[in-house]
Amino acid sequence: MSGTTIEFATPFVVFFGDIDDESWGKTGLGLVQWRPEACVGQLRLPGCGVDAGVPKLDVPGAKSAGARSLIVGSAAVGGGVPDHWVATLCEAAAIGIDIVAGLHVRLESLPGLHEAATRGGARLIDVRVPPPGLPVGTGRKRSGRRLLTVGTDCACGKKYTTLALDREMRARGLKSDFRATGQTGIMIAGRGLPLDAVVSDFLTGAAEILSPDNEPDHWDIVEGQGSLFHPGYLQVTVGLLVGSQPDAFVVCHDPLRTEISGWPDYPLPSIGALIERTTAIGSLTNTGIRCVGIALNTSKMTAAERSAVIDRYARETGLPAVDPIIDGAGPIIDRLMQEFPA
Amino acid sequence: MSGTTIEFATPFVVFFGDIDDESWGKTGLGLVQWRPEACVGQLRLPGCGVDAGVPKLDVPGAKSAGARSLIVGSAAVGGGVPDHWVATLCEAAAIGIDIVAGLHVRLESLPGLHEAATRGGARLIDVRVPPPGLPVGTGRKRSGRRLLTVGTDCACGKKYTTLALDREMRARGLKSDFRATGQTGIMIAGRGLPLDAVVSDFLTGAAEILSPDNEPDHWDIVEGQGSLFHPGYLQVTVGLLVGSQPDAFVVCHDPLRTEISGWPDYPLPSIGALIERTTAIGSLTNTGIRCVGIALNTSKMTAAERSAVIDRYARETGLPAVDPIIDGAGPIIDRLMQEFPA
Repeated sequence: MSGTTIEFATPFVVFFGDIDDESWGKTGLGLVQWRPEACVGQLRLPGCGVDAGVPKLDVPGAKSAGARSLIVGSAAVGGGVPDHWVATLCEAAAIGIDIVAGLHVRLESLPGLHEAATRGGARLIDVRVPPPGLPVGTGRKRSGRRLLTVGTDCACGKKYTTLALDREMRARGLKSDFRATGQTGIMIAGRGLPLDAVVSDFLTGAAEILSPDNEPDHWDIVEGQGSLFHPGYLQVTVGLLVGSQPDAFVVCHDPLRTEISGWPDYPLPSIGALIERTTAIGSLTNTGIRCVGIALNTSKMTAAERSAVIDRYARETGLPAVDPIIDGAGPIIDRLMQEFPA
Repeated sequence: MSGTTIEFATPFVVFFGDIDDESWGKTGLGLVQWRPEACVGQLRLPGCGVDAGVPKLDVPGAKSAGARSLIVGSAAVGGGVPDHWVATLCEAAAIGIDIVAGLHVRLESLPGLHEAATRGGARLIDVRVPPPGLPVGTGRKRSGRRLLTVGTDCACGKKYTTLALDREMRARGLKSDFRATGQTGIMIAGRGLPLDAVVSDFLTGAAEILSPDNEPDHWDIVEGQGSLFHPGYLQVTVGLLVGSQPDAFVVCHDPLRTEISGWPDYPLPSIGALIERTTAIGSLTNTGIRCVGIALNTSKMTAAERSAVIDRYARETGLPAVDPIIDGAGPIIDRLMQEFPA
């Protein structure tokens, strides 16, 4: 099978530039939170107001600390990359540190960076750019197990639910890998494929190479994208679902949302409708597919509201319901192991 | 709304190179068959064994006959473009004839062609390459009516069924446009979008701009792609379905096929299952969606077999069933007009 995923070397240093507001540094802050063991520190320029709480390094210090990659963990206001940021990237590339970014512009296009990377033997890795040679999906049954997160909408907690499920499995000594399908996930995992940027014809094929054959008791925990009831993005969700051929899925839902965010004419689907549709479409490549839990984003609720809403969804679906960020993913992994004993 | 379709000028001349077998010239032969009124003739190099039955021209003769575009209507054995073909393309571009092709290589990359086109003020149009600036799908309800062809598989007659439906509507004086979604269809229509080559995130948006707002009694007849039960390509089908927001659909089916062609582990879906799934997914952007007919490819059957199979599908579905290439699309358009009176 042709095609490979994006992959970069660790440990890494996170670059925040000189942003002064955490909202511009969400990617970098998420990285430090979810992959602390692979992070040697942070690179901040004079005036930077964000502090991820890890060692403050300059470029030579990052090299000494063992950094093999510099990850651009913030976005510059306006979308461009300021010259003084580029200067720091060039300094790192010139001493052999790979540069990893998910910018709107290609790293190659930043002035002097290609030359610096060539001089230092560094790679420039754009996590928004799919690698060449992705295949068409074959539908061939692969060995090993897979779980996919699906959502009632975009941006409702799929990535962090996926990470929490993987973390819980590893904590129990189970064999598990987080499979990233979006740029932030790829930065956290150190590998993956940005599925929304893949040419339509190769979307199922990309999802297939993302979770290849594996040991019978190994689980790939695959980050979901979009929603099956989303009028703009459902094609991405469908390709990921059929290519991943998951055995199990977890529904992610924000209980305070009533419509597709940004598409106000489209009401949010019910969880029951989403389970039914996911099962119907997913059955094409895995007839045993089933839902094993509900992940709720309750971050904006009081404790009493949280408890009531979690009870309600558990009762309505007959499935474990949790806020995985607050409660952990334990009850869902319990259910997964009941449904699919090793 | 941003983004536009590919579009080229007519009339055109078809270029066959020096192929000696009709199977390499299917695109060009289909063009002459389906758009004779826009074709001034054919360009054949010495040794060419294919004859489309239209005037044989050289480049100056094509210019004199009014050709505004030269369409490469054949594939060269091996996939490349021979130097003596390129010389003819350069000759045409240099005197201001646009060059249109769906090759695996970009026209820009052929030696001397960019320069010749600049000199002659000609455009180089790759119909496999989507235009830049395609938007994300909005799901906004558009004015006018739409019909989409769907299939139990790829390559089962969707393109020619769509053309036959459009032809029948025009013959009755109804307002209709054929909307092309693949390279051959784009060449026939003179415009369209190669949906399988669009980046996943913009697939529904591309389908939306392909059939824009129109008069209330105008029908866009949209060429389908892939199949909802195809493990490699269903994401393209889903994006096209939801972005097109069709009022009506026609199922295309090859009665001799039992499995997805090239994917032998996947049985062909039943027509009933396909109607149900198409209606379920299409309802997201058009709650009134319904099936108005069955188009059967009976080209390899005897007259008795044909008649029996057409009767059987009509009885089983309660819908008009025809082979549109042999019988025309009349009964399906009758049903469409009953279901959606002007």
